[in-house]
Amino acid sequence: MRCDILTLFPAPVEAYLAVGILGKAIAAGILDVRVHDLRRWAINRYGQVDDEVYGGGPGMAIMAPVAVRAVEEVTAGEQARVILPDPRGRVFTQEVAKELAGERRLVFLCGRYEGFDARVAEVLKADEISIGDYVVSGGELPALVILDAVARQVRGVVGDPDSVVQDSFTQGLLDFPVYTRPREFRGLSVPEVLLSGDHQKVADYRTEVSLRLTLLRRPELLLRHFFELPKELRQKARKLAQELGVSGLPEEPS
Amino acid sequence: MRCDILTLFPAPVEAYLAVGILGKAIAAGILDVRVHDLRRWAINRYGQVDDEVYGGGPGMAIMAPVAVRAVEEVTAGEQARVILPDPRGRVFTQEVAKELAGERRLVFLCGRYEGFDARVAEVLKADEISIGDYVVSGGELPALVILDAVARQVRGVVGDPDSVVQDSFTQGLLDFPVYTRPREFRGLSVPEVLLSGDHQKVADYRTEVSLRLTLLRRPELLLRHFFELPKELRQKARKLAQELGVSGLPEEPS
Repeated sequence: MRCDILTLFPAPVEAYLAVGILGKAIAAGILDVRVHDLRRWAINRYGQVDDEVYGGGPGMAIMAPVAVRAVEEVTAGEQARVILPDPRGRVFTQEVAKELAGERRLVFLCGRYEGFDARVAEVLKADEISIGDYVVSGGELPALVILDAVARQVRGVVGDPDSVVQDSFTQGLLDFPVYTRPREFRGLSVPEVLLSGDHQKVADYRTEVSLRLTLLRRPELLLRHFFELPKELRQKARKLAQELGVSGLPEEPS
Repeated sequence: MRCDILTLFPAPVEAYLAVGILGKAIAAGILDVRVHDLRRWAINRYGQVDDEVYGGGPGMAIMAPVAVRAVEEVTAGEQARVILPDPRGRVFTQEVAKELAGERRLVFLCGRYEGFDARVAEVLKADEISIGDYVVSGGELPALVILDAVARQVRGVVGDPDSVVQDSFTQGLLDFPVYTRPREFRGLSVPEVLLSGDHQKVADYRTEVSLRLTLLRRPELLLRHFFELPKELRQKARKLAQELGVSGLPEEPS
């Protein structure tokens, strides 16, 4: 997978891409990620990329010709999905991450200030994506969040594929909590069952904890993906829901 | 506001804090942000901070004594809100950002691998926060997303406070799109009204576009905050909803 990231702040983006799982995947050639400074496409020798907003109001917007030419030059006619992180966009979820992992080329356009001129998304047919209902100062963190989540879905990026299968949201369930040494810490013990060596018991316990956590904290997640769960998990979920006083789980269709 | 960020990857965190609005706020002394390498609290001279997960399965977890001692040493008995980015946590929104902006001290604990031993959150009474329904490789990006959104709510961080008032989600509405020079680009013109110089017309147009965008893309946002809108905006929203065929806006209570 090839990714291009266009930003006014290449340094922190490059620093993030140098570490951890992404850093390893890039070093191993599984991902080809290139970071470009948007100022390369400035409209004059003062490096101007933004200007005042028409209609008045605070802040500046990044000019359409700057962003559009940058994307066109970077993609050089090759097909690519242009991602524009924006709180107005469609909501990013684990499913969107899986969808994007099927693309051969991604281009991320990171805004700053009041964002890009609205015509940028229109001309580039950009995929405007929101990582959540809050506002940050630029598109860099959202672009890296999206890239990181997407990259984890690309084969070979995470060393142990079981790690990804077990991630939260993979089945509409929150992941179970983990414990490691020491067995006792500040009066808190590791749950006995995890030390039992009985794989089936451990698996059952973890499933129950996942279901319980999801029912208590994010019941709407479970509801949204309910019929993707195997039947015995649906039955277990209904029993737990009753016990916890959580209502709304659908009956089995007859 | 004082923030401490505990991470196994200080370099990209520091690189992000050096630029943009956050970088300026830190340089100006409005925010005091310190990044600490969790390995300083490793349990042995090999720098070990993690170990195998009890009960088996892929990945490693960060040990409770490492994380707890790190937080205790960094806060040195002073009260602080400990934030643990985790997909199992409560959902981060602009309202949570405003709530956290009222804290005097924040500590961010960034996980890697399978995350922290579950007892870390328990002992530290940590505020587990999820930035969205997806999984990334570590807590660094989520911590920076939260810190960035929170910092924007702290007085003096964003130069023009109007910029923040106008942000998306401030009233449960998506922000209106912006335009800048040139007036015409690839056959697309800036909307006439924005060039009219009539401030009232511009304001009305922007409000309508905001309402329209929110109704079309994120009606649930508008619903959640409906009675926080001024009455004339509620009326405008109802009219637009009818025009767009969006249902579900509540009637005025009589």
